[in-house]
Amino acid sequence: MTTIDLNADLGESFSRWSLGDDDALLGVVTSANIACGFHAGDPTVIRRTCARAAERGVVIGAQVGYRDLAGFGRRFIDVAPDELTNDVLYQLGALEAFARVAGTSVRYVKPHGALYNAIVHHEGQAAAVAEAVRRYNPDLPVLGLPDSAWLKHAEGAGLRPVPEAFADRGYTASGTLVPRREDGAVLHDADEVARRCVRMARDHEVVSADGDVVAVRARSLCVHGDSPGAVAMATAVRAALEEADVSVTSFAGTSS
Amino acid sequence: MTTIDLNADLGESFSRWSLGDDDALLGVVTSANIACGFHAGDPTVIRRTCARAAERGVVIGAQVGYRDLAGFGRRFIDVAPDELTNDVLYQLGALEAFARVAGTSVRYVKPHGALYNAIVHHEGQAAAVAEAVRRYNPDLPVLGLPDSAWLKHAEGAGLRPVPEAFADRGYTASGTLVPRREDGAVLHDADEVARRCVRMARDHEVVSADGDVVAVRARSLCVHGDSPGAVAMATAVRAALEEADVSVTSFAGTSS
Amino acid sequence: MTTIDLNADLGESFSRWSLGDDDALLGVVTSANIACGFHAGDPTVIRRTCARAAERGVVIGAQVGYRDLAGFGRRFIDVAPDELTNDVLYQLGALEAFARVAGTSVRYVKPHGALYNAIVHHEGQAAAVAEAVRRYNPDLPVLGLPDSAWLKHAEGAGLRPVPEAFADRGYTASGTLVPRREDGAVLHDADEVARRCVRMARDHEVVSADGDVVAVRARSLCVHGDSPGAVAMATAVRAALEEADVSVTSFAGTSS
Amino acid sequence: MTTIDLNADLGESFSRWSLGDDDALLGVVTSANIACGFHAGDPTVIRRTCARAAERGVVIGAQVGYRDLAGFGRRFIDVAPDELTNDVLYQLGALEAFARVAGTSVRYVKPHGALYNAIVHHEGQAAAVAEAVRRYNPDLPVLGLPDSAWLKHAEGAGLRPVPEAFADRGYTASGTLVPRREDGAVLHDADEVARRCVRMARDHEVVSADGDVVAVRARSLCVHGDSPGAVAMATAVRAALEEADVSVTSFAGTSS
Repeated sequence: MTTIDLNADLGESFSRWSLGDDDALLGVVTSANIACGFHAGDPTVIRRTCARAAERGVVIGAQVGYRDLAGFGRRFIDVAPDELTNDVLYQLGALEAFARVAGTSVRYVKPHGALYNAIVHHEGQAAAVAEAVRRYNPDLPVLGLPDSAWLKHAEGAGLRPVPEAFADRGYTASGTLVPRREDGAVLHDADEVARRCVRMARDHEVVSADGDVVAVRARSLCVHGDSPGAVAMATAVRAALEEADVSVTSFAGTSS
Repeated sequence: MTTIDLNADLGESFSRWSLGDDDALLGVVTSANIACGFHAGDPTVIRRTCARAAERGVVIGAQVGYRDLAGFGRRFIDVAPDELTNDVLYQLGALEAFARVAGTSVRYVKPHGALYNAIVHHEGQAAAVAEAVRRYNPDLPVLGLPDSAWLKHAEGAGLRPVPEAFADRGYTASGTLVPRREDGAVLHDADEVARRCVRMARDHEVVSADGDVVAVRARSLCVHGDSPGAVAMATAVRAALEEADVSVTSFAGTSS
Repeated sequence: MTTIDLNADLGESFSRWSLGDDDALLGVVTSANIACGFHAGDPTVIRRTCARAAERGVVIGAQVGYRDLAGFGRRFIDVAPDELTNDVLYQLGALEAFARVAGTSVRYVKPHGALYNAIVHHEGQAAAVAEAVRRYNPDLPVLGLPDSAWLKHAEGAGLRPVPEAFADRGYTASGTLVPRREDGAVLHDADEVARRCVRMARDHEVVSADGDVVAVRARSLCVHGDSPGAVAMATAVRAALEEADVSVTSFAGTSS
Repeated sequence: MTTIDLNADLGESFSRWSLGDDDALLGVVTSANIACGFHAGDPTVIRRTCARAAERGVVIGAQVGYRDLAGFGRRFIDVAPDELTNDVLYQLGALEAFARVAGTSVRYVKPHGALYNAIVHHEGQAAAVAEAVRRYNPDLPVLGLPDSAWLKHAEGAGLRPVPEAFADRGYTASGTLVPRREDGAVLHDADEVARRCVRMARDHEVVSADGDVVAVRARSLCVHGDSPGAVAMATAVRAALEEADVSVTSFAGTSS
């Protein structure tokens, strides 16, 4: 039977500021990438998000990022690799405290924002994040873009790499994401997105922006929750997957 | 045989800014109160401090504080108790990651600065910190001022309270610390401080600022490392204790 | 002719996080209390808010607060008065840069949140904020609660104190605000609030939670924009004031 | 008569953490690059530094940097140009408040650390910083590396570019700085440095690491204060300049 995971960024509120509809998304996804306080999330937000994820049986992953609340982790920072390793270790430990209080534990790692993008190519930072996970807990799988420096370094460090695809992003003929500044970068039609997700999960392929059928290798699909219509789209994706007899389950075991 | 612990604040550098002579102090103390990043300490500082403490056989404790780098944790903040619990949980988890990488674990908790002072009397915040430790790991002993709300709430939460005395502080006739703004609050003569420490450790008493002999109940003595002459004083204290056949050992087991 | 000012907190978004409907409120109020970056607001938010306020002819005031993004400035911090003076000076200067770029200048000062509440009674902090304004520009009027330590110290420092009332808050028989934890602290009916505002502006009185008519001395009314229905309420207040021939104008001149 | 300015970074302490010997340096330099709080400096540090600079007749410049206390502004951050403009405006205004309280004003701008290095080549960020200065006060001269994108964009924006040289850095045969990771990047002999400074100031030339004489165009020389021997070196530089009848004066007028 075909199996796929659905992951989304959660716990990205901070202080007085709310972001995203976490409660709704927790009813849809199987893996929660929970912000760890460096780009978003404060201790109270993190605790609540971990507690609710655990209650809903959603697996907790560490959404580690650059130390940049003022930029929401969306700006590349040229952190020295050894310092980046330490920044990631700090975030892993902090999140673990709340996962533990919620009766579970951190089960995987997925970098956020500019860090996610940087380590597609940045060998030093990719190796630094992999080193942090290896040092912290080499049993943690890591989520990322197929063929990224990040997943290669993770695999080299003895970690289990888990490739993901994006539910609502356009793909090029070579199987990479259409850059955000170009037409077709982001898809807005929930039904179309849902159909593409079924095809990616079941047939391991997607139609590119140019109309080609390209191979997509993904054990997880990333959906979003912080824009209008996002929850409805995620819900449509899950419904379509189940309708197509795709088993929607975490790649990292159960949350308990 | 009489036994006493020596504890000091460590890992309080941040970014480009150095503070204290951690390497020297690690040769003197048996317990390292390591800053967790909220009032001082960054991930790289914390990792290095944990590694060196572990190498030297010094036990690691979590020096948790208010979230206030700009005030070095020295200003009371009226944090709601449930948020304070979460702030402490976050710091405990973060430090644990580095203790783990160093081959050991967090073995006790000692609040820092204004938080330390606040929870001598502030019941809500005292209970909140105790709740964090209980939730995180109820086997962790907690260090604090004898008869403080903090130690009482910790004990009520099932934690082991460990009272401490201050090597270089004056005591009143009622056994409390001479307030910092008064004469005699801080002692500067290393030999005198060392003699007082021996008496506190062995005879459980100290001469107050008024000349009375008052009882002092302490399983640990706090020494400092961030002022001129501080390391020399701490060294003198340790030498005098050993000279007097007082066993200088951690209250929290060994570091390995 | 009766004259009143309407003020609201604006520019409280930060980084990725939006808060409040600033554009709508700028069509209603005559004075914009713009956050200065210590409790909310980042440089890009502040610049945009200043520009839009200036375009709409709304006067810019400095909404200074404690340095506490993680608490949104809502927690009392026991900052030493001389440091608080400096924190306020820093915020005044920062905001001024954006007011200047927008073709206007900072015209008044209104403390935010926990600082606002603290300096109703805290003499040291009240004097410290007044000292900052006096040092920066003694021609700036300051907005606050009637009979507060803040307005008294401001007046003593040679500043012009401007008392305000709250559109949607209940008052006690002695003319103070009903504490937030009590029934009747906050009023939710827009029409009732609008009627009360007209009475406060024109007749200088309000009906207390106990049914007494109590005197209210206010040159400005504070309305809110960060909760559901808030803009509609503020709009109703302004419409009712104009309907009653109350002139809605700034206490601090024009924005140009 | 030959004229040169001496500039140094000042006001880089933060909270409990001290850095540099500002008082000693203020007796040597004619221009103080004062940190504005984004990479270093807090309001109390900034106020004290401005006051002392004004007392000593040292001109105040804004040492603007990336928003990165955790990295001391030493890490490139890929801030969007329009946001960088706003970050610089914020810092300029904040520093101005303290310059004003000290009876003077901000007289020039010199970017710090990674921002300084980035805008040697990064056109977008160079233009963004120039735009901030132009918007804030087009009469402010700006200090930077000769032939940098920063000085070119500043000149294009109508600002006065002021080239500087580094007292203790080695130069290549093409007149650029020897990269820090190479031998000869930093000179440690105070007498040699002083002699080179005289030659740079009077003869507009320096001997490169390869032994060539290369042209150096500088109206200011940068000296350091945050390393051992730094103040002694700066003092030697000033003494040698005066001995050689070079007039050591600010490029930006007087401080009063």
